[in-house]
Amino acid sequence: MSGSSFGSRFVVTTWGESHGKAIGAVVDGCPAGLPLCEEDIQAMLDRRKPGQSKFVTARKESDQVQILSGVFEGKTTGTPISLLIPNTDQRSRDYGNLAEAFRPGHADFGFDAKYGFRDYRGGGRSSARETAARVAAGAIAEKVLSRLGISFLCYAKSIGEVEAKDFSADEIFRNPFYMPDREAAQLAEKYLNQCMEEGDSAGGTVECRVTGLMPGLGEPVFEKLDAVLAHALMSIGAVKAVEIGDGVNVSRTRGSENNDGFTTDSQGRTIPLTNHAGGILGGISDGGELFLKVHIKPTPSIRKPQQTVTRNGEPLMLEISGRHDPVIVPRAVVVVEAMTALTLVDALLVHMSSRMEFVEMFYEKNMRAAPLRSDSQN
Amino acid sequence: MSGSSFGSRFVVTTWGESHGKAIGAVVDGCPAGLPLCEEDIQAMLDRRKPGQSKFVTARKESDQVQILSGVFEGKTTGTPISLLIPNTDQRSRDYGNLAEAFRPGHADFGFDAKYGFRDYRGGGRSSARETAARVAAGAIAEKVLSRLGISFLCYAKSIGEVEAKDFSADEIFRNPFYMPDREAAQLAEKYLNQCMEEGDSAGGTVECRVTGLMPGLGEPVFEKLDAVLAHALMSIGAVKAVEIGDGVNVSRTRGSENNDGFTTDSQGRTIPLTNHAGGILGGISDGGELFLKVHIKPTPSIRKPQQTVTRNGEPLMLEISGRHDPVIVPRAVVVVEAMTALTLVDALLVHMSSRMEFVEMFYEKNMRAAPLRSDSQN
Amino acid sequence: MSGSSFGSRFVVTTWGESHGKAIGAVVDGCPAGLPLCEEDIQAMLDRRKPGQSKFVTARKESDQVQILSGVFEGKTTGTPISLLIPNTDQRSRDYGNLAEAFRPGHADFGFDAKYGFRDYRGGGRSSARETAARVAAGAIAEKVLSRLGISFLCYAKSIGEVEAKDFSADEIFRNPFYMPDREAAQLAEKYLNQCMEEGDSAGGTVECRVTGLMPGLGEPVFEKLDAVLAHALMSIGAVKAVEIGDGVNVSRTRGSENNDGFTTDSQGRTIPLTNHAGGILGGISDGGELFLKVHIKPTPSIRKPQQTVTRNGEPLMLEISGRHDPVIVPRAVVVVEAMTALTLVDALLVHMSSRMEFVEMFYEKNMRAAPLRSDSQN
Amino acid sequence: MSGSSFGSRFVVTTWGESHGKAIGAVVDGCPAGLPLCEEDIQAMLDRRKPGQSKFVTARKESDQVQILSGVFEGKTTGTPISLLIPNTDQRSRDYGNLAEAFRPGHADFGFDAKYGFRDYRGGGRSSARETAARVAAGAIAEKVLSRLGISFLCYAKSIGEVEAKDFSADEIFRNPFYMPDREAAQLAEKYLNQCMEEGDSAGGTVECRVTGLMPGLGEPVFEKLDAVLAHALMSIGAVKAVEIGDGVNVSRTRGSENNDGFTTDSQGRTIPLTNHAGGILGGISDGGELFLKVHIKPTPSIRKPQQTVTRNGEPLMLEISGRHDPVIVPRAVVVVEAMTALTLVDALLVHMSSRMEFVEMFYEKNMRAAPLRSDSQN
Repeated sequence: MSGSSFGSRFVVTTWGESHGKAIGAVVDGCPAGLPLCEEDIQAMLDRRKPGQSKFVTARKESDQVQILSGVFEGKTTGTPISLLIPNTDQRSRDYGNLAEAFRPGHADFGFDAKYGFRDYRGGGRSSARETAARVAAGAIAEKVLSRLGISFLCYAKSIGEVEAKDFSADEIFRNPFYMPDREAAQLAEKYLNQCMEEGDSAGGTVECRVTGLMPGLGEPVFEKLDAVLAHALMSIGAVKAVEIGDGVNVSRTRGSENNDGFTTDSQGRTIPLTNHAGGILGGISDGGELFLKVHIKPTPSIRKPQQTVTRNGEPLMLEISGRHDPVIVPRAVVVVEAMTALTLVDALLVHMSSRMEFVEMFYEKNMRAAPLRSDSQN
Repeated sequence: MSGSSFGSRFVVTTWGESHGKAIGAVVDGCPAGLPLCEEDIQAMLDRRKPGQSKFVTARKESDQVQILSGVFEGKTTGTPISLLIPNTDQRSRDYGNLAEAFRPGHADFGFDAKYGFRDYRGGGRSSARETAARVAAGAIAEKVLSRLGISFLCYAKSIGEVEAKDFSADEIFRNPFYMPDREAAQLAEKYLNQCMEEGDSAGGTVECRVTGLMPGLGEPVFEKLDAVLAHALMSIGAVKAVEIGDGVNVSRTRGSENNDGFTTDSQGRTIPLTNHAGGILGGISDGGELFLKVHIKPTPSIRKPQQTVTRNGEPLMLEISGRHDPVIVPRAVVVVEAMTALTLVDALLVHMSSRMEFVEMFYEKNMRAAPLRSDSQN
Repeated sequence: MSGSSFGSRFVVTTWGESHGKAIGAVVDGCPAGLPLCEEDIQAMLDRRKPGQSKFVTARKESDQVQILSGVFEGKTTGTPISLLIPNTDQRSRDYGNLAEAFRPGHADFGFDAKYGFRDYRGGGRSSARETAARVAAGAIAEKVLSRLGISFLCYAKSIGEVEAKDFSADEIFRNPFYMPDREAAQLAEKYLNQCMEEGDSAGGTVECRVTGLMPGLGEPVFEKLDAVLAHALMSIGAVKAVEIGDGVNVSRTRGSENNDGFTTDSQGRTIPLTNHAGGILGGISDGGELFLKVHIKPTPSIRKPQQTVTRNGEPLMLEISGRHDPVIVPRAVVVVEAMTALTLVDALLVHMSSRMEFVEMFYEKNMRAAPLRSDSQN
Repeated sequence: MSGSSFGSRFVVTTWGESHGKAIGAVVDGCPAGLPLCEEDIQAMLDRRKPGQSKFVTARKESDQVQILSGVFEGKTTGTPISLLIPNTDQRSRDYGNLAEAFRPGHADFGFDAKYGFRDYRGGGRSSARETAARVAAGAIAEKVLSRLGISFLCYAKSIGEVEAKDFSADEIFRNPFYMPDREAAQLAEKYLNQCMEEGDSAGGTVECRVTGLMPGLGEPVFEKLDAVLAHALMSIGAVKAVEIGDGVNVSRTRGSENNDGFTTDSQGRTIPLTNHAGGILGGISDGGELFLKVHIKPTPSIRKPQQTVTRNGEPLMLEISGRHDPVIVPRAVVVVEAMTALTLVDALLVHMSSRMEFVEMFYEKNMRAAPLRSDSQN
């Protein structure tokens, strides 16, 4: 496969450039019969929309998603769901030396090296705008999962040097950084104001927790659940590290500290006693809470002058003017959630055929089943 | 695809269990005409062989690889290369309660949850023994890359709390931990001796550096080079975190510190001024040194008693007797190198068709080319 | 992969239903630097447009394609090309019993059996309208191939019982059936008029010839060129048989008749003496003309009453009113061409990395190549 | 994917050359808990074994399959099943001009054109011997299907000009051609004796019927069940045409003749009235009997002199001495069956996640299910 598709059964393909006519996604393999409307998707999309605080780009994009196919009478049909988000703010402008310069920290040089030239308008295909298509697709994945009782909690753990110490799920949606700690959010605001004054930018971390997952998801040995999650998350532009469970800390601990013992719950089911593993053991979900963390680099577009060269090899001191997000983290939170949801729903659909008893039960039940009446689908 | 294959063009499929008859790999898509013999593979395989020091398992496995197909008259034919490594040390034994107990930190529970039962002999498919097949395949990948001038340096950065401060490439192969710092290696030995005395185990980190890479490798947006590397590395059993370039540190830095500027080399080619990105920018190799790091958890098999349950839900205090590696890191070094090589060779082969000018040049040159004489292949 | 994508390197994903808002395709993996505009695609699309003669549906669809992404300054960028064709003739109407009845020869029952319900408007996803998206994508594939000197000739070999005896390439585009024989075309017209009078429909055959192909395309053993072509062609709704070269006739011939000997051309290159194989030997192109043939069933929608049942199992004599194409063949010609082109371009891109000498030559040449200037791409 | 793998969920990868050490297959994605032993596979493999009559090659190959992984305590574990068949008759010999000549009708030229050289011993990778690995894998697929009540009937419909008129399922296994008509088998024997006397060979056709299939298998639009079957069957070396249902005859019929009406069976389930479609409508199984037919070319190795060239372009009159099958058909019967089974089991596993109601039912039932006891699996 070429690089714009993700998943093996629930497959999302994204397309579009920052300043083209539109961006979009095609979701193939979504199970039929899922109630779905544009509002379901819009709600999640609104969480990454630009212009929601002074810390995210002022670009005016309404980011209104349209469903062009794959839904009939309010339910998914099992065929590809085409999602389109028009680019409304694509007025032609003067890109000045940005068309020729390789911006440090951006994909400009990489695209030129790979393809020989690039769509330089606003970063083209490498723009973070592409992630809007992922979020739209992820909203569908998350809706599938939510009907199974699986729920997500995704938030900014740190902004620059400011780390959330406290954890309040309610607080997450009350501050512009999606931090679970009000005090930390206030410190982050100060920290970012200082960055902006200096014409600089900040990084940060995002954590994601998922509850309600059945044990058994993930395919040994190369499609382990944590391997695919790492793939999904590292494919988000600014992510430079991915941790599962205790992550980087495991390298300094002892086996007796890191191992999670097992016990049984009140219904006699096996559950982990602790959760250093982050809900994934041997690449397979263990029924515990999924816990992962990503590290996001500072926004590469900064006002401070930077040394670089043009496509022709001429040296250049680049100063990037205009408004830019001083931090990517707040808008990345929902992207991390979307990529996690896409990974989990795919792993689940693949897992359904992993045992003969599942296959036999399915076949016996559906072997000659008459089609369902439309009204019995909900 | 089910989970035992990796790659899109240079594809490796591994198979086999710890105590089955053999393990192996099939490599499909290796370019034809590569000189290859069993010794090429054996050399890399020997680097992860058990029994090389008191810190790795005493299991007697000669790990002799056989090439069963895909090589003719000393060269790869372009068709699948089947590699087989017999399991010589598979005497039947008494597994005692290991057949029933869920060992903490192991995949036992996950496999049972997924498949309903499992091959409990020595971990079955989830045993680290599976990685021998990856290393055998990786040796072929690395040979392809070495002919293009691409070279690898992979080593243990830390063992438990002991971190290498110094860096000597020569030292790496002089101590049993593959550490680039002699003094650190000595401290690591002490640290591990203490772990063993306490019936405990240690984690650590592995770093990998690759030089000679052309810019342009990696496919936006989901098959970014760093995304596929993260996938490859996280699929190694005990890895719990993957970092590219500055990794986790990027979240605390400023854009002005993290961005790598550009300059030109003496031949007028664009090169990065610094390498915080680790050789990958926007998911595409930038011609700089590739740098990555993984965090490995402590060996889960420890002598210390651990609380767990059996398949039937009965509580159990488990004491795992016998010899076990007190640390996975030294044997993981070559596995990290193998997975990195497999990822890079695949990215390279896919990249070859990314521009019309490449396609046109290829077609013109080979459109009606007569087959080459066998003796002109070297 | 779910079912709406085709190809491994040059990948097309189609979406959309007959009476939804639009249909479309995403083409991922098209080499960068191909000059491309909407007119290039429109020209091929116009060949399957409805309403061009009284023998094809009168549905008013202008079928105007829009390129939404992947093209910049008149050239492909290497990133996904999103193609959109609005459905202009999608007025709401009364579908009467078509919403409930399983139309014989249509996918109605299959979709209900699979998904539990279906978009019944005009056949929904199973409508032949979906093939417009394939043709749009195929136009890009064909443009890539045409720049390499590869050309297509695709035509109707027979309509019902009327078979073309003569062959004139010029004649193909002079009659509404794309037949290469004027007299046969006139007989076909009479035959179809009779079918229409009787409220019935006719089948037919399409042949496709491709010249200029290099030898070596196709991947043993499951991705043989003929295997993938058979896949591509049988995926066209009404196709029930695929023949390569002498096709069904090979089963009655002798080896001495069917084998193609070899000779050399004036430049000393190996070429086949005859072409019973149809340009593919052992699943690999042999440099001869590619020749294939598909058999297309009669249009299933007919006026004659047919016995069927509803979703609820009630028996029904179905009479399908309204205008329907009495034959699918003329509009299928360009679809066969498109699917053939998509298969060939994918096989070519994959083949580029099949020899070490190709890889080494590529790497040496492009290892540190500076990005090309945009204006040197043409 | 490179070319040696087939399937998306139940994936088979084959490897090996005619005169290498062994051939084999890796089956990944087989559901866990299927009782499986070597005899299950051997029984199917024996049906294509050489040396069973004077009409198939006298090569002495016992074709004893070994299961190297993926089965534990008599049941599949869900992890890759590695199958190995040693090549016992691989004595070194003098290949004479076969190493240099391009044999007409063989893949020799194609492999040289693609890879630059080839393993010329007995056809190397392009030998029909490779199909033994497919049959071994197909035996596993067929065992999965048989447990669901799906059964196969596969036979030779014609040998050269001799066509079976009668149909007796019992007769199929009573004659060396697997023909369902005793008289035809006797005529075929005469026909082949004549071919052999003349140093020539014959083609033929194979038909396959499958009953017990549930409706709903196949993924629109590119992974239609018939499209994937065509792929699977055309990937068998000597197949040059594939027909589904009425196949090539549909092109001459009318819609009123070709359409299959629907009715309901005694249990109120929808079933087709006739079966022109061959059990697949709109690319999805319709619950009717699956019916397909392939056309197989005459064995290319013949004693009669043939004009060809060497790798160096020197003209040559080639006479292929030694014993060769005068017809491929009898041994192809079981290969057709194997490829059909592989296609169907994959389509079934993929289909299991096509509706939300299936997903929800599965999740609810297995969400926290304790692992099954080993002894409850049968």
